[in-house]
Amino acid sequence: MNQVLGLRILSTAQALPARIVSTAEAAALCGMPPEIAVKRTGVHERRWLSGSETALTLGAQAAREAVAAAGLEVAQIDTLLNASGSQLQPIPDGAALFARELGLRGAATYSIHGTCLSFLLALNHAALLIGAGQAKHVLIVSSEAGSPGLNFAQPESALLIGDGAAAVVVGPAARDGQGIHAMRVATYPEGADHTRIRGGGSLLSPRHPDAVPTDFTFDMHGLSVLRLASQVVPDFLETLRPGLSTGLPGIDRVVPHQASAAGLDLMRRYGWPAEQTEVTLTHLGNVIAASLPLTLHQALTTGRAGEGDTLMFAGTGAGLIAGGMILQM
Amino acid sequence: MNQVLGLRILSTAQALPARIVSTAEAAALCGMPPEIAVKRTGVHERRWLSGSETALTLGAQAAREAVAAAGLEVAQIDTLLNASGSQLQPIPDGAALFARELGLRGAATYSIHGTCLSFLLALNHAALLIGAGQAKHVLIVSSEAGSPGLNFAQPESALLIGDGAAAVVVGPAARDGQGIHAMRVATYPEGADHTRIRGGGSLLSPRHPDAVPTDFTFDMHGLSVLRLASQVVPDFLETLRPGLSTGLPGIDRVVPHQASAAGLDLMRRYGWPAEQTEVTLTHLGNVIAASLPLTLHQALTTGRAGEGDTLMFAGTGAGLIAGGMILQM
Repeated sequence: MNQVLGLRILSTAQALPARIVSTAEAAALCGMPPEIAVKRTGVHERRWLSGSETALTLGAQAAREAVAAAGLEVAQIDTLLNASGSQLQPIPDGAALFARELGLRGAATYSIHGTCLSFLLALNHAALLIGAGQAKHVLIVSSEAGSPGLNFAQPESALLIGDGAAAVVVGPAARDGQGIHAMRVATYPEGADHTRIRGGGSLLSPRHPDAVPTDFTFDMHGLSVLRLASQVVPDFLETLRPGLSTGLPGIDRVVPHQASAAGLDLMRRYGWPAEQTEVTLTHLGNVIAASLPLTLHQALTTGRAGEGDTLMFAGTGAGLIAGGMILQM
Repeated sequence: MNQVLGLRILSTAQALPARIVSTAEAAALCGMPPEIAVKRTGVHERRWLSGSETALTLGAQAAREAVAAAGLEVAQIDTLLNASGSQLQPIPDGAALFARELGLRGAATYSIHGTCLSFLLALNHAALLIGAGQAKHVLIVSSEAGSPGLNFAQPESALLIGDGAAAVVVGPAARDGQGIHAMRVATYPEGADHTRIRGGGSLLSPRHPDAVPTDFTFDMHGLSVLRLASQVVPDFLETLRPGLSTGLPGIDRVVPHQASAAGLDLMRRYGWPAEQTEVTLTHLGNVIAASLPLTLHQALTTGRAGEGDTLMFAGTGAGLIAGGMILQM
């Protein structure tokens, strides 16, 4: 892309499950000593759904709060994008279900799915819609219920994943230069089996006689993910903006996907200072596609990022997909 | 949108399962007389997966053929959009799996899901990417394996759904006026339960103790869909282009979603002549999101549509989502 794609973040909001699960509690379910669990994952606590909470109720709550924080009525939302890595139900897509919860009728609603980078893709799509005059106020909802799909026989993923939701309302840029200055995603499908949930789609139906319960749980090989990411990410970053594999040229703050402690450590290798990097992994875990907007919400509400700042979203997701966006607030 | 969004269809291709299932055969599985089954659905035959065929193998086959028909190498595809209503597996999204089958590395790959209108949404997204300089050659794959999710105790959906795949390669417009002249989708979520597959996502996990096998099958209430569509579609069409609820102003050919015979009949009420409407329902059934590109492929390969023609895509999907696009070829 050659020019700035105008976009303004009007508001962000989050909705977290009430239940806080310490790493000691999660580690006990995996039969692992808690100190080792914290050391390996970098996660001290995460939220898990309980009681009547679902990814639908949390996503709708975050969405309502984001719309109100933008100073809008629900009816002023013309487009609702569901940008979640875990699906609510196969048909209809989750966006229609969120719209029903919100009482939003007549808006364009659909889902964009690129696993952990779904929010990034939806944010870019929103800017494209607005730039083409197809939308004015876009609501993006990322809501994740990973905990029902955890396999405690695989601590690597079971200790990492947390539940939660975030929503963001975006609109047209308010001034020149505000918006997306660079955006790129690239998939290296030799990593497609490194992070997966095999069962639940047509390749292995829930009704398939050979399916076993763990087919419907997370299966992650973190070392393979890291090895592949180490290989491909530096070149990827250089195509996003030259110099990004050895520093942060023109970037005020990094909002990374919270893949894992090792994933965040990798960023130190690129010369990105820890003090410029926003972290939610410690207290929320990896919340799949909701990690990016939850981490953005934290950066904005703590005042560590604000109007006029240049942020970089960056991360990898199952695929293996790598993605980055440079956004001037 | 106020101006034409440049887009050129470079090629289309299809890949159909080898197994042809007559309506007599499908009706027998439902315990229904074949004449009644044909009369109710308008479907004479459809394809169902058999042997080693999957939505992945068919989608990849259609994709390879579409890339070749566009005169391109796989490596020239910069963006691969999976636009399917049925998912291959929950994580990673299907686009990464198609990329692996094709040997496509380093391209942007992700999924857009708006049930039966996923292809329409992906086509619009492709035009937006191209217009913003983020993409040049976009491959859209719609591949459906609905048959493993059929419930023969519900003939209404079981007789309707067929399997199949189509792929389309698009690129920048070759001349002024070529591309999208109008695009709109709108969701009426009071219809969210009229067409659904309840189980398989986080709201009703495959591992949930209360889940029963039919929770993972299509559940469709055609009369409720039709009633809601009759109410909302005329106004919807008028906002797509004035006059569309009573005729086809400036439209050469209609490429509709093949929801059902009753859904196609509804179009007669809008004054859309049958001879201007492309139909694949009779021999392919409702192939979910693949119906639109399969029907486009038929229109182009039979010569009933071609360069310079103005097509209108139109249809409804689970949600209830209504969508339409006016595209000058």
